[in-house]
Amino acid sequence: MTLDPVLARIDADLPQATERLMQLLRIPSISTDPAYAADCERAADWLVEALNDIGFDASKRPTPGHPMVVAHGQGEGPHLMFYGHYDVQPVDPLALWHRDPFEPAIEETPRGKVIRGRGASDDKGQLMTLVEACRAWKAVHGALPARISVFFEGEEESGSPSLIPFMKENADELKSDIALICDTGLFGDSTPAIVTMLRGLLGEELTITGPSKDLHSGMYGGAAINPIRVLTRIIAALHDDQGRITIPGFYDGVPELPEEIAAQWQALGFDAKAFLGEVGLSEPAGERDRTALEMIWSRPTCEVNGIWGGYTGDGFKTVLPSQAHAKISFRLVGRQDPFAIRENFRAMVRGMLPPDCEVEFHGHGASQASQMSIADPAFEKARAALSDEWPNPAAYVGCGGSIPIAGHFKKILGTDAMLIGFGKDDDQIHSPNEKYDLESFHKGIRSWARILAALSE
Amino acid sequence: MTLDPVLARIDADLPQATERLMQLLRIPSISTDPAYAADCERAADWLVEALNDIGFDASKRPTPGHPMVVAHGQGEGPHLMFYGHYDVQPVDPLALWHRDPFEPAIEETPRGKVIRGRGASDDKGQLMTLVEACRAWKAVHGALPARISVFFEGEEESGSPSLIPFMKENADELKSDIALICDTGLFGDSTPAIVTMLRGLLGEELTITGPSKDLHSGMYGGAAINPIRVLTRIIAALHDDQGRITIPGFYDGVPELPEEIAAQWQALGFDAKAFLGEVGLSEPAGERDRTALEMIWSRPTCEVNGIWGGYTGDGFKTVLPSQAHAKISFRLVGRQDPFAIRENFRAMVRGMLPPDCEVEFHGHGASQASQMSIADPAFEKARAALSDEWPNPAAYVGCGGSIPIAGHFKKILGTDAMLIGFGKDDDQIHSPNEKYDLESFHKGIRSWARILAALSE
Repeated sequence: MTLDPVLARIDADLPQATERLMQLLRIPSISTDPAYAADCERAADWLVEALNDIGFDASKRPTPGHPMVVAHGQGEGPHLMFYGHYDVQPVDPLALWHRDPFEPAIEETPRGKVIRGRGASDDKGQLMTLVEACRAWKAVHGALPARISVFFEGEEESGSPSLIPFMKENADELKSDIALICDTGLFGDSTPAIVTMLRGLLGEELTITGPSKDLHSGMYGGAAINPIRVLTRIIAALHDDQGRITIPGFYDGVPELPEEIAAQWQALGFDAKAFLGEVGLSEPAGERDRTALEMIWSRPTCEVNGIWGGYTGDGFKTVLPSQAHAKISFRLVGRQDPFAIRENFRAMVRGMLPPDCEVEFHGHGASQASQMSIADPAFEKARAALSDEWPNPAAYVGCGGSIPIAGHFKKILGTDAMLIGFGKDDDQIHSPNEKYDLESFHKGIRSWARILAALSE
Repeated sequence: MTLDPVLARIDADLPQATERLMQLLRIPSISTDPAYAADCERAADWLVEALNDIGFDASKRPTPGHPMVVAHGQGEGPHLMFYGHYDVQPVDPLALWHRDPFEPAIEETPRGKVIRGRGASDDKGQLMTLVEACRAWKAVHGALPARISVFFEGEEESGSPSLIPFMKENADELKSDIALICDTGLFGDSTPAIVTMLRGLLGEELTITGPSKDLHSGMYGGAAINPIRVLTRIIAALHDDQGRITIPGFYDGVPELPEEIAAQWQALGFDAKAFLGEVGLSEPAGERDRTALEMIWSRPTCEVNGIWGGYTGDGFKTVLPSQAHAKISFRLVGRQDPFAIRENFRAMVRGMLPPDCEVEFHGHGASQASQMSIADPAFEKARAALSDEWPNPAAYVGCGGSIPIAGHFKKILGTDAMLIGFGKDDDQIHSPNEKYDLESFHKGIRSWARILAALSE
């Protein structure tokens, strides 16, 4: 089966492929908010239909949370398993969007055409690059070039509570020769990338309670403990003056970067000033003695993702609140143990509590970092295929985001994963005005068509 | 004019007086939220009608914010000016109320009957004690025992932006021999109190901006500055390990407590354990070397009244936010200068900002502390009248809350103010389930009837 007519078909079919993506983007499948549960179901139904349409045997599989979509195609050659997620992040602050997040459109920008809308890049646009590549192969040759299966989840943006049980229960069905995960980005505009290093993620929510009820700060202020003050003191103590995280044992299992990888990264010519300049910053704010690329790819972090307590509306209220809350996450690397860090974090917080205060913790998912084995020849085949499609040769890179699925494929199914995606740094994923470049979508579909051909050889 | 028939009339009329208070409590006059502006107007109209009903010449006076109510009664003797406020605090968190905050009712409790509803104690119930005392005098004697005027504002819970301009513009009309302010509490259940020491209040809101937009904590975490982390570091630095506030010059003008007042306070037998125990606490949390009574009456404070930033909804969002916010207030004593403290606070915050961060400040009112001159014989007359009504003799006390109006009467009008009120520590003002004891209301009305008699002698 030849590749060229498939690529030609992809070029000709781009307007229709884009319209199909728009249909999926219009479904507000926000997984973290229970109000959108029915929309998550709708997104799964839509994908089942799209996959059945192009010859897969697709089905929606119930879980205690949002459903999975699993599909199997007929085909010869190696068994490839594609992973993506159809759920999206919340859209707040809504006021900062310049269009309805769920009324996507093609917009002209100084840097080219973009598909604007929540999920355009993370991850609906990305997962559709694969679906459309399969559609083109099927249309041209009446068959897929390999035995392809698809596994889409709907809880990736909310900690994937059903993922591990589902993978365990359906391990035989989900096993394959290699997993292909489309949820990452290009390196720069013209350099495709295969991620070989992924940070893990640990989420913790804590509530500190002082007085048994909200108090008047005039009547009690001075004598009553203020839980916001306690919380800020604890959060402030999580980093030292050098930007290092102070939780006991936190750096256990954090490896130094191998010289060979450090050299490869050096060669990428990463422009930290430009990377930070895009978002109004100028100086890397992490550990003092690390490069910006290390900070985002190979060093662990501790971030406050949310904080709240007391009166937060218009005007002023002289309340001394009963409770203060924070959501804190840790990006993990190497062999850092999320469960040990969770325990050490909680112990540190408990140790800092003054008299009369209590703390409650709520864990939000815990995944270790992943390291891919690039000895598998599939990596070099895919790298060559990507290099054929894009202006620059493809690179092996790290990824600061946490994509726990790669670790699960390895641990539960014994399958290695390859992470390839076409997002760009300015896609504003998780932020207002998310977009996916039309070029990412187009060349992304073409990239998968090439990779399918390469892996089936 | 004799007092006894007036007291008898008050006793007989209590059910009707309570029902009139309920009418006022049903009006949700939340001044800090623009959505309730029309309700503030309605509350002012209701008071104008109530005052005109008992022979005052009352009118609603427009301001750039919520209106004032000013009323003048005919009468002989000294000119007394009554102050109260008809606006109330917001009601959130609404879920913690066991009834609609604006559907007040008499409830039976283990400690007696209470009037439950927002504003029952702060300050609608209190201001109505005066109105009802006047009503009884008028009903029994056809006249008031003194020349009484009334001045009610509708912005006390939102920083009183219109108060000073209004007092300056209407200084001649508002001048009197003494101002009587009903917005304070009893000392314990059986001991009436006249406040002679009031803390001032400085409100500051700050917004710290780091990145120009919300970021994905995986993509940028580690390299991008997190404004929540910056804010928590600043707030944590506002107090030292001894509970002292670290803003340069903050304690300038803070006097040591005179020995004679310290001795008087000692004699009150204040039970700090019980005071804190009521709200689930056990240890005074202020400056290490101070008594709990000093902490709430005569020492300055710095409290965080609200904090927010990032994702605060259900679930988890790995966002690295662009902004973080806090509302901070300072209770001031002695000759502390709110404007100097504001400048020093802002300079300290600016000095702690790391590169790439900006701060915006929004001031929310600034008032100095007040010290009453108890040499005026009116104080001893009022103290004797209160002692006649209640089980224990009345005490001169401090007040931790900020009632800037006392300072304004002195500064703008040259009038001394006397602060007498009947609230209790467990009234839950500014909190869910606010109440006013029916006894506070009943004996409060009787107390004012007695004080009017005493001051007119």
